Amino acid sequence: MTNFKEPTFDVAQLAHVELFSPKPEETIDFFERLLGMQVTARAGQSVYLRAYEDSYVNTLKITEAKEAGLGHAAWRTHSPQALERRVKAVEATGLGKGWIDGDIGHGAAYQFTTPDGHPMELLFDVEYYQPTDKDRTKLLNRASKRPDRGVPVRRLDHINCMSPNPGKNEQFMVDALGFRVREQIKDNGNTIGSWVSVSNLVHEVAFVQQPQINEPGKLHHLCYWYGIPQQLYEVSDLLKENNIHIEVPPNKHGISQAFCMYVYEPGGNRIELFGDAGYLITDPTFKTVVWDMKDVPGNGDTWIGSAFPDSWWNRGTPVSTQELVTSK
Amino acid sequence: MTNFKEPTFDVAQLAHVELFSPKPEETIDFFERLLGMQVTARAGQSVYLRAYEDSYVNTLKITEAKEAGLGHAAWRTHSPQALERRVKAVEATGLGKGWIDGDIGHGAAYQFTTPDGHPMELLFDVEYYQPTDKDRTKLLNRASKRPDRGVPVRRLDHINCMSPNPGKNEQFMVDALGFRVREQIKDNGNTIGSWVSVSNLVHEVAFVQQPQINEPGKLHHLCYWYGIPQQLYEVSDLLKENNIHIEVPPNKHGISQAFCMYVYEPGGNRIELFGDAGYLITDPTFKTVVWDMKDVPGNGDTWIGSAFPDSWWNRGTPVSTQELVTSK
Amino acid sequence: MTNFKEPTFDVAQLAHVELFSPKPEETIDFFERLLGMQVTARAGQSVYLRAYEDSYVNTLKITEAKEAGLGHAAWRTHSPQALERRVKAVEATGLGKGWIDGDIGHGAAYQFTTPDGHPMELLFDVEYYQPTDKDRTKLLNRASKRPDRGVPVRRLDHINCMSPNPGKNEQFMVDALGFRVREQIKDNGNTIGSWVSVSNLVHEVAFVQQPQINEPGKLHHLCYWYGIPQQLYEVSDLLKENNIHIEVPPNKHGISQAFCMYVYEPGGNRIELFGDAGYLITDPTFKTVVWDMKDVPGNGDTWIGSAFPDSWWNRGTPVSTQELVTSK
Amino acid sequence: MTNFKEPTFDVAQLAHVELFSPKPEETIDFFERLLGMQVTARAGQSVYLRAYEDSYVNTLKITEAKEAGLGHAAWRTHSPQALERRVKAVEATGLGKGWIDGDIGHGAAYQFTTPDGHPMELLFDVEYYQPTDKDRTKLLNRASKRPDRGVPVRRLDHINCMSPNPGKNEQFMVDALGFRVREQIKDNGNTIGSWVSVSNLVHEVAFVQQPQINEPGKLHHLCYWYGIPQQLYEVSDLLKENNIHIEVPPNKHGISQAFCMYVYEPGGNRIELFGDAGYLITDPTFKTVVWDMKDVPGNGDTWIGSAFPDSWWNRGTPVSTQELVTSK
Repeated sequence: MTNFKEPTFDVAQLAHVELFSPKPEETIDFFERLLGMQVTARAGQSVYLRAYEDSYVNTLKITEAKEAGLGHAAWRTHSPQALERRVKAVEATGLGKGWIDGDIGHGAAYQFTTPDGHPMELLFDVEYYQPTDKDRTKLLNRASKRPDRGVPVRRLDHINCMSPNPGKNEQFMVDALGFRVREQIKDNGNTIGSWVSVSNLVHEVAFVQQPQINEPGKLHHLCYWYGIPQQLYEVSDLLKENNIHIEVPPNKHGISQAFCMYVYEPGGNRIELFGDAGYLITDPTFKTVVWDMKDVPGNGDTWIGSAFPDSWWNRGTPVSTQELVTSK
Repeated sequence: MTNFKEPTFDVAQLAHVELFSPKPEETIDFFERLLGMQVTARAGQSVYLRAYEDSYVNTLKITEAKEAGLGHAAWRTHSPQALERRVKAVEATGLGKGWIDGDIGHGAAYQFTTPDGHPMELLFDVEYYQPTDKDRTKLLNRASKRPDRGVPVRRLDHINCMSPNPGKNEQFMVDALGFRVREQIKDNGNTIGSWVSVSNLVHEVAFVQQPQINEPGKLHHLCYWYGIPQQLYEVSDLLKENNIHIEVPPNKHGISQAFCMYVYEPGGNRIELFGDAGYLITDPTFKTVVWDMKDVPGNGDTWIGSAFPDSWWNRGTPVSTQELVTSK
Repeated sequence: MTNFKEPTFDVAQLAHVELFSPKPEETIDFFERLLGMQVTARAGQSVYLRAYEDSYVNTLKITEAKEAGLGHAAWRTHSPQALERRVKAVEATGLGKGWIDGDIGHGAAYQFTTPDGHPMELLFDVEYYQPTDKDRTKLLNRASKRPDRGVPVRRLDHINCMSPNPGKNEQFMVDALGFRVREQIKDNGNTIGSWVSVSNLVHEVAFVQQPQINEPGKLHHLCYWYGIPQQLYEVSDLLKENNIHIEVPPNKHGISQAFCMYVYEPGGNRIELFGDAGYLITDPTFKTVVWDMKDVPGNGDTWIGSAFPDSWWNRGTPVSTQELVTSK
Repeated sequence: MTNFKEPTFDVAQLAHVELFSPKPEETIDFFERLLGMQVTARAGQSVYLRAYEDSYVNTLKITEAKEAGLGHAAWRTHSPQALERRVKAVEATGLGKGWIDGDIGHGAAYQFTTPDGHPMELLFDVEYYQPTDKDRTKLLNRASKRPDRGVPVRRLDHINCMSPNPGKNEQFMVDALGFRVREQIKDNGNTIGSWVSVSNLVHEVAFVQQPQINEPGKLHHLCYWYGIPQQLYEVSDLLKENNIHIEVPPNKHGISQAFCMYVYEPGGNRIELFGDAGYLITDPTFKTVVWDMKDVPGNGDTWIGSAFPDSWWNRGTPVSTQELVTSK
């Protein structure tokens, strides 16, 4: 019993994500007018946004760039001490890049990449959103009033990174940052999908293998959360009326059990929207759920629907020239 | 920065709850036929049940007794070492009662009470449910198939204990067990309600003050989880048709933001059903949300409904003679 | 068999409703910004609006007035011939007032009142809404795109008139206009509530008795339709954030089985919002469902909730001085 | 104006449907255990069932047969006189077959077929379901209590017939029975889909063309109604756990706007389940909505999803040998 390996509880949450967009104003219109998010700052080529239940001053940074893709993802630790411990662990892997002074909404942050080159950072100091008289709500655990535009998302949920080698990234997140492995897809013994978390959520980040194409550092998708299944139908209706491409209509994932849907924002990044909490993991000896790839279509991708389209499996951002030919 | 107090992560979850019932067979029919739970064992005056997404062999024990009320609540730790640490901390408070060998579904457990006498236990060793060929599902992260009876609940969520002194119980849970205080109701400076958790949930246990009557150790309610708001309407319809008293129809709590409802099971205990995940707390420096009692009716009890009925505030189990007069 | 009385099918639908408001701009903001309706015309002291699935150019006319209340309700017939037949039948009752040339959105209309003085009109010629390029949708059976503001209602549903004598009004609607009586509340043999329809809906108009106060011609409420239960929670959240009084939170009526809620628009009129279709009546020999008033609270008003508040039973618009004392 | 052609209001509703099944006991288990229907009679090779809000003693007859398919569909008229008028009109077409004395649940019925040979009947006399003390409900407009098994459907909704010539069948329903044409799919000027109704519903019957194969009289699907979108997810989960093939997961039709899903019952017939009321037609001069086939996939079949699978367009019952090769 005394040999039981105790878990690490140093990383607390996904704090914010930066997306690149070649059409930043259209991307911002998507998040602001249709998903009801709030622009809280603009600086240089970047615009900062938050959802109405995000407690920090921003959770999304849209930066103009030639191609869509992941700018970076930021992890907040439980304490300053935990930040120091995790920075040391990352430094030891050789993937660290060093400290920055901060950005709008947060203080000093330590930059690094996954083994596949996804830019990430660790931080502790953040700035909380202070509601104005106009958007202060009587619902005291809500950071600001529910907006009156679009079908407003509530908070940032997770990211999914495409990778030639999900198993290697998974191991890095586990060893250096203390993530637990919740679900995996195995194909002939290789890990081709991995969902890892530091919390009761099934994942704050997932890694899925991009078939054939060997381009590291891509984004599969970024996910915001509604928590109410029906809202996915409401936002689908609104998005369809506004010519946003719906890649996967509302459905229930097998993996994570989350009620989900996927669309492409105008800049080209895939955005997932979550309609419930899926299942939550409070079991401290939870065993990784392992799916054989042959059982995934029709069970793991979607529990009650048709298997996901090829584009879902093949397309990441930046989009490859090769992909542009095969996906519609 | 280095003076930042790091949180304790030793208790992982509410593992199971024992309820007393003066009408055990009717109580079991309620949980089995209407809420779709499964009876997994019977022993002596007790019957053991689980919901279809509970991974352990049981999460509910119904024990025949003269009066309704809380048998005990059991907390599972993250590790054997964490169990040792928490037992020592409880022993130091003088509220420890000692070890038992175990019960159906778990091994050695350390018994204690809250300052107000609510019976609780700490444990680590549990028995997982092994599905039969008939109830094994292709949804690999689900412990067994969704049943075809009633409107089946998915998993155990939390308990709420009535108490003459919520603040004192809150402090015990924080100091001895490492809970964090998520929301409070204050009345003239006194804590008359407290929601505490060891996870991203707003609470695994709450304490609410019973007005006037000074009887310790009562149960306010036990809660099972659906995670889908509409299911509360489905189960309400079924319960109404089966003459189960609905004390509070489906509505959204302000405190915890959970979509909720309250009914009395035939043995007399109040049962809450949760229709979503409310809000989840991943912010490591989350500040306790403090409600002034005068703002609670119509905002904190229910965000969009009418203030809760007097019975909700006054009635616990065992029911006082005095209460029987004043609540309808 | 040959003596079977065949039904009359002359009146087809509730075409539009005029409300009086002492605060017209606030009333319009409520319907436009929060309920997502579209202002299609302004003339004199009136503003005309439609919901996005209303096929006519307007279904709601807001007219500035000293007190809230019903301007009039308009019924569209199945044919010009049916209009002639119904006008003759109304003339025969002595309640006819004569023809007007029309208004924005419709042609010639015949004005009359119920026995209790509720202003109504019969018409056939209407003007259809023509979408612009910007709000034309690919969903060909939808009159215009789903808006991106508020929680948009889909179409006009029904009105409910307060009356000292529901039975007398019911009989007029049946005899002169061909309505069928779907549900009734009886109290000691007197009809104190009546729901009548010309379609598969349970009602296009209801009459409910105002207790004690003997003021004819009042409005109980006007109802718009969502058709999706969850939308009532979404709009409740938005309305609460915007300080709109929610008199009855989302719940399921026993009578009509509709999923409903009630709020007061800023001008003071009660507005109902419908979250589903309740039950539809296609049975041609459907027997009127008769409720005894003693069974209504907790079954007929709300199937799964608490009995409706006194204000719901007592308050109509214009609001009596007497009512202002007793309702909150 | 006086030349306006007035509509016919003689047929009131789809009263019941007979399905053939080569696996009758499995088919009945599907409707009884999973869809919560009630077996009310068994006679010869047939079993009769009803949903809990069906007011008649049965709406579904399952008859053992070598192949799946449509036994017949029965239309109830508004009156005995209306029945006489419609029988005369059908006789005039040469498609009448003559009177039968009745069956369990109804009296004399006049049998005929569509031009494509779908067996139908007209009737007026029906037997109402009389609840027992055990299933009588306080919800007085509900025929019997909501059951405690499966995810119970509420009532019969409509049928869809496959046909080599939808336009010809449509014209027959309009001319002989007084149906109105609500929506159509046109392909190069030919009507290849038609939705017709006698009520505010978009359809009680539809006709869709079976591509290539020229076999008349097939069933495309039978539909029962929930009226609540979320219930489609609940029943999907249950059906998946019970190995029922889900051909189209829950989604919103463009045509009819109904929230729908399609499964195959164990006997092989396609069953649709409706999760809302779609849109209702009360406009007496409603113009037929005409879809060009090229716009249907992704807009008309499903408004927010992926185009329907080939099997949905190609497969009817009885299943052709040819189909068995091409559909999965």
